[in-house]
Amino acid sequence: MSGLAPSADVGRVSVEVAIAWIDGATGRLETEWVALDRAWGRVLGEDIRAVAPIPREDCAALDGFAVSAAATIGAGAYNPMTIPGVALAAGAALPAGTDAVVPLDQAEPTDCGHLVVVEPAAPGVNVDRRGAAAAVGALLATAGTRLMPYHVGLLAAAGLACLPVVRRPRVRLAMAGALLSGEAADRPTGAGNGPMLRAAIARDGGDIAEASFAGAFAGADADLVLVVGGAGPRRDDGSAAALAAAGSLDIRGVALVPGETTGFGRTAAGTPAVLLPGPPAACLWGYELFAGRAIRQLGGREPGLPYHARRMMTARKIVSTIGTTEICPVRLCPAGEAEPIASFAEIGLMAAASADGFVIVPAASEGYPPGASVTAYFYG
Amino acid sequence: MSGLAPSADVGRVSVEVAIAWIDGATGRLETEWVALDRAWGRVLGEDIRAVAPIPREDCAALDGFAVSAAATIGAGAYNPMTIPGVALAAGAALPAGTDAVVPLDQAEPTDCGHLVVVEPAAPGVNVDRRGAAAAVGALLATAGTRLMPYHVGLLAAAGLACLPVVRRPRVRLAMAGALLSGEAADRPTGAGNGPMLRAAIARDGGDIAEASFAGAFAGADADLVLVVGGAGPRRDDGSAAALAAAGSLDIRGVALVPGETTGFGRTAAGTPAVLLPGPPAACLWGYELFAGRAIRQLGGREPGLPYHARRMMTARKIVSTIGTTEICPVRLCPAGEAEPIASFAEIGLMAAASADGFVIVPAASEGYPPGASVTAYFYG
Repeated sequence: MSGLAPSADVGRVSVEVAIAWIDGATGRLETEWVALDRAWGRVLGEDIRAVAPIPREDCAALDGFAVSAAATIGAGAYNPMTIPGVALAAGAALPAGTDAVVPLDQAEPTDCGHLVVVEPAAPGVNVDRRGAAAAVGALLATAGTRLMPYHVGLLAAAGLACLPVVRRPRVRLAMAGALLSGEAADRPTGAGNGPMLRAAIARDGGDIAEASFAGAFAGADADLVLVVGGAGPRRDDGSAAALAAAGSLDIRGVALVPGETTGFGRTAAGTPAVLLPGPPAACLWGYELFAGRAIRQLGGREPGLPYHARRMMTARKIVSTIGTTEICPVRLCPAGEAEPIASFAEIGLMAAASADGFVIVPAASEGYPPGASVTAYFYG
Repeated sequence: MSGLAPSADVGRVSVEVAIAWIDGATGRLETEWVALDRAWGRVLGEDIRAVAPIPREDCAALDGFAVSAAATIGAGAYNPMTIPGVALAAGAALPAGTDAVVPLDQAEPTDCGHLVVVEPAAPGVNVDRRGAAAAVGALLATAGTRLMPYHVGLLAAAGLACLPVVRRPRVRLAMAGALLSGEAADRPTGAGNGPMLRAAIARDGGDIAEASFAGAFAGADADLVLVVGGAGPRRDDGSAAALAAAGSLDIRGVALVPGETTGFGRTAAGTPAVLLPGPPAACLWGYELFAGRAIRQLGGREPGLPYHARRMMTARKIVSTIGTTEICPVRLCPAGEAEPIASFAEIGLMAAASADGFVIVPAASEGYPPGASVTAYFYG
């Protein structure tokens, strides 16, 4: 038997090289049209321009009475005038023949639908003019925008019923399971990987198709293939060997802790495939840095980590091994500093659960002294 | 006819008073049990403690060979020993009779399932001990935690199949529609309110039940009632009058721009009800500050605005009216300052679409000079 160590021909690469592989293998998917009511959270595939002016008609800018300004000429405290006036809520279109809005407290309605005014109204006063918010052709939202509720409201008000959005990536997910002695699918330490990844893929906007390990690398109906576990200590077993046999194995192992045994390649159909480690913390970080990045990129989202980053000071020394990128869990101190806590190597996924966030220590660094300025990512 | 001005008996209140009303009317809902696979994004209703140690058994800390440390005693470069050893991936449980893991590159497997070692292994080396990450009874996640993928993974690994989470709030949503002249449900300026609110309610974790305006204030099957539009310029018409007739109208009008005509009360069944303005920008802000807060609070989430806040400097003067809380859209300058842009009063919802975020200018302030330090909220 050969290939004891990580195989020499396909060696461990830096995090940067692995990210470059992901970025080279994945690009924004094509656009599809979805109903506006289902577009929230999706990413626009094209610029959206106004096809009609906004507002479409002259509208009341506040609650009041729509009047003809001409009819108010000459009104005054000593010359109250009774004129036609229509009660309107702010935002309502002005009826034909009116061109000004008298505020509620500046007029008195009569019982016969008229209005007593005691000062003249200028034409256009308290009116939002047709097209004042956007003229025809005005840019309402740009390609690449992740649609928030107010975009949905604006685009609905602009008369759009369907929107062009980036297709959701289809992610084929397989558990290698009991490929390797002791690594049964139901063993406690790996039992959480499936639920964890399904949640993370949903968060990142992917649609999941579960597959058996045997079927993981076949077919062309996925945008990304993820296989969990079955890393295998030898070159000729496990998921890496299966991927190499089915298509190509481009990277086996990344200088990342946790996540060192993450692998990368392509299926026979050319679909990018990421092999994730079985230990849960390694599985999580192999996902977050690489597989999740692929999904986010395919779906047109911001490819970086979906956590909020903030520059802050370290409360204590952070120790890291040179040559390896390390994910160091930190807690947010009351004083606003980042305090390192028990590492993923020590307590596995519990390190994430008991931390507020994490610091990524690059491979070139041996860590940070107390008081160093670092970028911390926060879960909350 | 009477009650031209906002009625004197139920006057306009400050944003703080309206928020206090919401906070008094809504509290965290009861807990329900959901399958772990559906728990992502939900809020834990109870603390979760480990019912079994994590890991449940001694596990390999890295890829290697499980051995009995005792069998390696005496091994050395000049005394290679052939002993039983089992290949394991990191995270796999140690087989009975083994208590140490020899790394891949420090042993050579033979063809008959044995292993040649050239140095002794100490008992427990490269082993994650049973219970090292969490002992029985250890706190895994606290009540109030919004479940992220790693929580799902950890809790699945801890053996939980169902989780106690805060029930999703049921939100009854009705459009007042053509209550008032000119305010037809299909008028362009209000056509986006339904889609916008459905997106916002989904974002905030609410389940929507659509209702007719006639049925909005009846029945006890909702946790919150939202009625949009139909504000009506008079006390005796519109949604406010309907709520007052059905139950109670506690607040009519808030010193907030946009959002001034937002109203608050209770249905006959005591369900809190928020009346949202019809103009889209006012509808959005009445929702974000008050209705959305109610939904977030009912669902156990952080009740504040679901946008990221940051202290920053103003690039230009921000002008605001004293006595009214104003939402001022801002753009993030390349220099990292917040630059005010065309207001909601000027361009409606377009102000949100063309801004990166907003600054809330409190009622007591007339605005800020250039270079002032303000809290800006960002959409992205």
